[in-house]
Amino acid sequence: MSTTTSPPKKRLSNLDIVALCDGFPNSATHPSLYSERTSKLGYLVHGSHRLGYLLPSVCDALRNAAVSGPYWEINGKLFSIKGETEAERTANLKYTVDKWREIGLFKVLKGWRNELYPAYIPGRKGGEKVFDVERAACALFGLISYGVHLTAYVEDEQGLRIWVPRRSKTKSTYGGMLDNTVAGGISSGMGVMETVVKESMEEASIPEEVARQAKPVGCVSYFYVRSEKAGGEAGLFQPEVEYIYDLKLDASVIPQPLDGEVEEFYLWDVEKVKEELALGNFKPNCGVVLIDFFIRHGIITPDDEPNYIEICSRLHRRLEFPTR
Amino acid sequence: MSTTTSPPKKRLSNLDIVALCDGFPNSATHPSLYSERTSKLGYLVHGSHRLGYLLPSVCDALRNAAVSGPYWEINGKLFSIKGETEAERTANLKYTVDKWREIGLFKVLKGWRNELYPAYIPGRKGGEKVFDVERAACALFGLISYGVHLTAYVEDEQGLRIWVPRRSKTKSTYGGMLDNTVAGGISSGMGVMETVVKESMEEASIPEEVARQAKPVGCVSYFYVRSEKAGGEAGLFQPEVEYIYDLKLDASVIPQPLDGEVEEFYLWDVEKVKEELALGNFKPNCGVVLIDFFIRHGIITPDDEPNYIEICSRLHRRLEFPTR
Repeated sequence: MSTTTSPPKKRLSNLDIVALCDGFPNSATHPSLYSERTSKLGYLVHGSHRLGYLLPSVCDALRNAAVSGPYWEINGKLFSIKGETEAERTANLKYTVDKWREIGLFKVLKGWRNELYPAYIPGRKGGEKVFDVERAACALFGLISYGVHLTAYVEDEQGLRIWVPRRSKTKSTYGGMLDNTVAGGISSGMGVMETVVKESMEEASIPEEVARQAKPVGCVSYFYVRSEKAGGEAGLFQPEVEYIYDLKLDASVIPQPLDGEVEEFYLWDVEKVKEELALGNFKPNCGVVLIDFFIRHGIITPDDEPNYIEICSRLHRRLEFPTR
Repeated sequence: MSTTTSPPKKRLSNLDIVALCDGFPNSATHPSLYSERTSKLGYLVHGSHRLGYLLPSVCDALRNAAVSGPYWEINGKLFSIKGETEAERTANLKYTVDKWREIGLFKVLKGWRNELYPAYIPGRKGGEKVFDVERAACALFGLISYGVHLTAYVEDEQGLRIWVPRRSKTKSTYGGMLDNTVAGGISSGMGVMETVVKESMEEASIPEEVARQAKPVGCVSYFYVRSEKAGGEAGLFQPEVEYIYDLKLDASVIPQPLDGEVEEFYLWDVEKVKEELALGNFKPNCGVVLIDFFIRHGIITPDDEPNYIEICSRLHRRLEFPTR
C-alpha cells in the first residue's frame, strides 16, 4: 500500500510574488515580447486615447452587432463606444454588457457586482471621466481598476505583527486565500479615504474614527493577467492601481469579520507572514501590498534582497493607459 | 526712472518637480516620442545586453580610433568595449576615457572624480559586473548610477521637521542649491548601508551608531537628462537609482558640515520645505526624494494630489537597462 503525499510547494521569492501579479510584458525591459503580445490585441479607445487592451474573443464579439449592439465605432483594431456625453456612452456600453450577460457570452460576467467603475482620459485635474461600466466587465475591456488596501498592524514590545484575514472559503474569487486587513474597489464617485472608511467597517468592523487614522503611504500599480482563481476566463487583463494605507492599532483593537467575506483574522508576526507569502497562500495583489509594506518598514533591505530595485519598480508600474 | 524687478518664479507642482528629474520619454505612455528620441541614439552594449544610450557626439568619438583607441567593437549603432574579463574591459575603457580627458574632448570629464562606478548585466544574484568606469564618464555612456539619499527628521510635539543642507556655493554641481540631509554615490564594491554610514559622517558629522539606525524604505529611480547645472555638456543621460533611508533624530542630534560640501543645515517644517520645492530651489533628484518622503509619511495624499498615481510611478521608473 502506498501513501500519496502532495509534492512540496515551490517557495516563492519576493520577486516571484511580484511577478505573479505583474504579469504583462513591460515595453521598457522586454520590447520584443511586448510588441509580440500586443500585436495580437485590440484596443478600447476614446478619441486618440487608448483605454485598454481587448482579447481577440472580445474583438470578435464587438464586431458582431447582433451580439454587441449598434453602438460601436470600429476602425481595424480600435474599438470606441459611441456617445457624445459621458451619460450616453455609459448607457451604450451598458447595452452591450447587458446583452453579453443575457446570452451568457463571457463567464466573467457571472460575477456581476451591480457596481460601476469609471474610465478616464487625461484631464485638467488629473483625469476626466469617459464613462462608467459594470465592475465585472472591466477585465473584458482591459480597463484600469482602482482600489484601497490597508495593512493594520501592532508594534509594541512584542515586535511588529500584522492583522491578516482569511477569505471566506465560499467566496467565488480566491476563496480561502489570505488577504490584506482591509481591501476593496473604489466605485465610481467614491473618494479614496471614503472607501477606506467604508471597507474598514464592512470587512473588519473597524469604526470610522479608527479608520480615519489610517495613513496614506503611496500606491502600488501592476498589470495583472487574470488566472481562473479571479473568476471567469483566464487571460483577461486587469491593470490596477491600489492606494495603500497603514493603520497602526493598539493591541486592544481587534478586527472582526462583519459582512461574511472574511472567515477569521490572525495577528501574525513578520516571519509567519513571510512564510505564508513564500508558500503562495496570499491573494496575488495582497502579496504585493505586503512586499511594499516590508520595504517601507525596512524589513526587506537593499543589502539583503538581490532584486530590490526591480521589485521597487514593478510595485509601481507605469501603466500605458490614462489614470484617474 | 523705472525700477526693475525679476519676474516671479513659476511655482512648480509636485509633478513638475518629478518631471524635472525624470525627463526621458517613457516607452509605455509615450511610445512615439520614445521611438523618435531613441532612433537618434547609439547603444553601449555587452553581448545581447544594452547598458546605456549614447549621444551622436559620443558615437562619433568612439568611431574614431585615433581619439578613442583600438578597443571598441562597433556594429552600426551598437558599441561594445573589448575584453574577455571584467578587468580587461575596465582597463580598455579606462584607456578611452583617459584619452578623452587628456585631449579635453568632453567638458563633463573636467569633473573627474577618481572614483569608479560599476555597470551590470543580469546575473544570478541580482546583477553581474561587466566593468568599472570613472564616475564622471558614466553620463557619456548613459550608464545607470547608484546612490543613497537619507532624510533626517525630527518628529515631536512641534510636529515634523526635516534637516535640509544648502550645498556649498563653490561646488561645481548645483552650487548653492538645497539638498537631502545626506546623499552620495555608491562606488564600486561598496555596500548600500556602508555608503550611508560613510556619507553620514562625511557630509553631516552623523556618527556611525546613529547612522546605522537609518531605516531603508525603498528606492527611487528615474531617467535624468542632465542640465548644465549638473556640470559638463547638457543633454547627457543619467538614469539613476537612489536607495532611500529615513533617519528619525532626537532634536539634540544636530547635523554639522564636515567635508566642506555643505554650507549650512536648516531644520525646516513641512510647509517651508514644500515652499522651497515649489520654487525649484532643491537639486532635482533631492526634490524627488522629498516628494517620496511626503507620500510615505501621508503628507501628500491621494485625495488632495491630482497626479498622485503618475507621481508614484515616476518615482520608481522601470529603467530599460540592467541594474545591480
